[in-house]
Amino acid sequence: MPVLNDEVPSEGDFDAGRRRGEFDSITPEDFIRGSGGAGRGNPPGWLGRDDIERARMQLPITYVEIVPVRTDDLGRISQVGSLLCVSDDGNIERTLITGRVLFHESLREAIARNVAKDLGDIALPMLPANLQPFTVAEFFPTPGLSEYYDPRQHAIALCYVVPIAGDCKPQDETLDVEWVDPRGGTMETFLAQMVNGHDRIVRRALAWAGI
Amino acid sequence: MPVLNDEVPSEGDFDAGRRRGEFDSITPEDFIRGSGGAGRGNPPGWLGRDDIERARMQLPITYVEIVPVRTDDLGRISQVGSLLCVSDDGNIERTLITGRVLFHESLREAIARNVAKDLGDIALPMLPANLQPFTVAEFFPTPGLSEYYDPRQHAIALCYVVPIAGDCKPQDETLDVEWVDPRGGTMETFLAQMVNGHDRIVRRALAWAGI
Amino acid sequence: MPVLNDEVPSEGDFDAGRRRGEFDSITPEDFIRGSGGAGRGNPPGWLGRDDIERARMQLPITYVEIVPVRTDDLGRISQVGSLLCVSDDGNIERTLITGRVLFHESLREAIARNVAKDLGDIALPMLPANLQPFTVAEFFPTPGLSEYYDPRQHAIALCYVVPIAGDCKPQDETLDVEWVDPRGGTMETFLAQMVNGHDRIVRRALAWAGI
Amino acid sequence: MPVLNDEVPSEGDFDAGRRRGEFDSITPEDFIRGSGGAGRGNPPGWLGRDDIERARMQLPITYVEIVPVRTDDLGRISQVGSLLCVSDDGNIERTLITGRVLFHESLREAIARNVAKDLGDIALPMLPANLQPFTVAEFFPTPGLSEYYDPRQHAIALCYVVPIAGDCKPQDETLDVEWVDPRGGTMETFLAQMVNGHDRIVRRALAWAGI
Repeated sequence: MPVLNDEVPSEGDFDAGRRRGEFDSITPEDFIRGSGGAGRGNPPGWLGRDDIERARMQLPITYVEIVPVRTDDLGRISQVGSLLCVSDDGNIERTLITGRVLFHESLREAIARNVAKDLGDIALPMLPANLQPFTVAEFFPTPGLSEYYDPRQHAIALCYVVPIAGDCKPQDETLDVEWVDPRGGTMETFLAQMVNGHDRIVRRALAWAGI
Repeated sequence: MPVLNDEVPSEGDFDAGRRRGEFDSITPEDFIRGSGGAGRGNPPGWLGRDDIERARMQLPITYVEIVPVRTDDLGRISQVGSLLCVSDDGNIERTLITGRVLFHESLREAIARNVAKDLGDIALPMLPANLQPFTVAEFFPTPGLSEYYDPRQHAIALCYVVPIAGDCKPQDETLDVEWVDPRGGTMETFLAQMVNGHDRIVRRALAWAGI
Repeated sequence: MPVLNDEVPSEGDFDAGRRRGEFDSITPEDFIRGSGGAGRGNPPGWLGRDDIERARMQLPITYVEIVPVRTDDLGRISQVGSLLCVSDDGNIERTLITGRVLFHESLREAIARNVAKDLGDIALPMLPANLQPFTVAEFFPTPGLSEYYDPRQHAIALCYVVPIAGDCKPQDETLDVEWVDPRGGTMETFLAQMVNGHDRIVRRALAWAGI
Repeated sequence: MPVLNDEVPSEGDFDAGRRRGEFDSITPEDFIRGSGGAGRGNPPGWLGRDDIERARMQLPITYVEIVPVRTDDLGRISQVGSLLCVSDDGNIERTLITGRVLFHESLREAIARNVAKDLGDIALPMLPANLQPFTVAEFFPTPGLSEYYDPRQHAIALCYVVPIAGDCKPQDETLDVEWVDPRGGTMETFLAQMVNGHDRIVRRALAWAGI
């Protein structure tokens, strides 16, 4: 269940239910104290609470959204990954890897940073040679306006499929990283557990990959 | 020549040299008075001067950038369009159609609005069936950081080729809309007159279209 | 039901159940007499029965496959078209627009020719500016080898979504052209009536278009 | 210089100047004796001289064409590869990796086979998760008809960028595999040495990759 009234808004979290900060080295305290500036221990581009909340009411926020996959030696997707996280209301939630693109950060850096944030530093993501997203998901804060809903903001998510060649070590609030055969019977269950349209993004990734 | 210190920042103008407001019905006075709110004659999502300037220093701004083309009956690009505008320093400048995506505005609405803004209401743009951009251009306010430079902001431009089936009536500060055969000799001159990497976007559009 | 042992193999028909010749002006007699050469009333590139049957056993055959759509003024797909044809065994079959690419014929010519063959000469197809197919469907003559099965041949189909701006006049054995709202309840019925994986091609077209 | 009248037509060679057989284990003798059938030491799908020559006059031949690249840890292309081969007239020629798709062979198998043919078995090609080509190059046997010319045939080449993660060992008639920085000064020389439009395919690959 997405939560609107986070006491501590998780700046970079696309899926509202996740409370984790966007960077491994940042504690909630850093976040609350931060005003978005460098020099306070926050990464460049990081925004303080007031600033990100104001921005979210004023203009669309650019996100990257990553469908992590395992591929075989002919490049076919053999497994699709997702994250299991605990949401604010105590439910377990299945999500993809998502995060805001920070000021002065390139899309490639944003993809790499968000993969490392969720899967750890030895995941070895194989970023694509071109940055044409397989789909652009438009999340609106108004339910029903589009297929994608985000109660916190208007977000424009550039979606990429990223093969993961290394080992995954779930970070922070992520309980687990789970892999499912996209052609297997559990794929539907897997998709049914995703909220706010993220299942559609996975379906589009699979359609794009010819599955 | 792009201009950094606009007295009246043209909110939606991607190319800094253009002074025109983003909407036909908005005068500079509206803009100065506006605080971004509806109810003052500004469209929803329109930001006042302080708000857009703050946002530009805090997070990447999402743009659509459109390469207008004429196509023949087999869909091949026969002509590429561009706009001639007068910049603040009195030079004539060649640009594409660009504009910020406003809060709560869909990408399709942003494309249609910006085409109408520059080419008029009977241009009959043929928007693509899918919104996968042919390229994503990342503009940074730091020269040399990427191929694309925008002194005012970090902008992420989703770039589309849009066939124009109707008549074009240049609006506002646009002096003219010019069409060039992409295979002809004047194409290089045309490209040389584009600044800040917009020529690269046209080249990529043509490569994508197989020209 | 696809039929393997056509008495008169319909050279250009992708879907084996369709008996119609590939060109409006060609009768089955022309076809039987033809040896693929120009000068006998056949279009250049047209192959006689022995030649096409031999080729089908020897190498993959390149096809174009077209999902005809109606779009609204923002380019969104409002309707998906399909053809109703009578198959050799008397059943009514739902298909897309498909046809072989002929020798010395460009992909654009093949798309335009096949649309005209099925929808008539005033359908006004809006061919895309780039020829990157939204998917490449590989049909094998061995069931189960891939998602796509064609008992007659190994076919490589480059798949395109083509908006139809004009009027459709079903040709030859085509009984009707039907249009369905892709978001409506009858879409699933529509898809269930397609055989040999063509429903998957429609699903991928819709996923690609963000539906 | 492409050669039309090969004494021993190199079945799978896209670039006519290359005399090498399509498979490492096949000698020209095998080829001449072969009638395309399995059971004579030829791989399934391999065609004898008469059959491939007849096919080349009758219908378009489907090819895969691969631009081998080296990428950095953010997925950016750092180097573009090409092959140096000796042509029949004794000149050294620069080519890409190309080959015909064989009967009953999938596109992925064709890509992997052709990379192994030219770069060896430990090249570790990273095939893309989706098979949408970055461009489709249409080669006609008539000069001037399109940007791509192949004196031997009408070929439809599906073009892919494939990162190479392993070691390259040039095979057979390939003298060398050379890598060039796509942003460096020697790139233009590199492109100028490619014939029949293959330089255009590289330029499109780079445009597609945002370079």
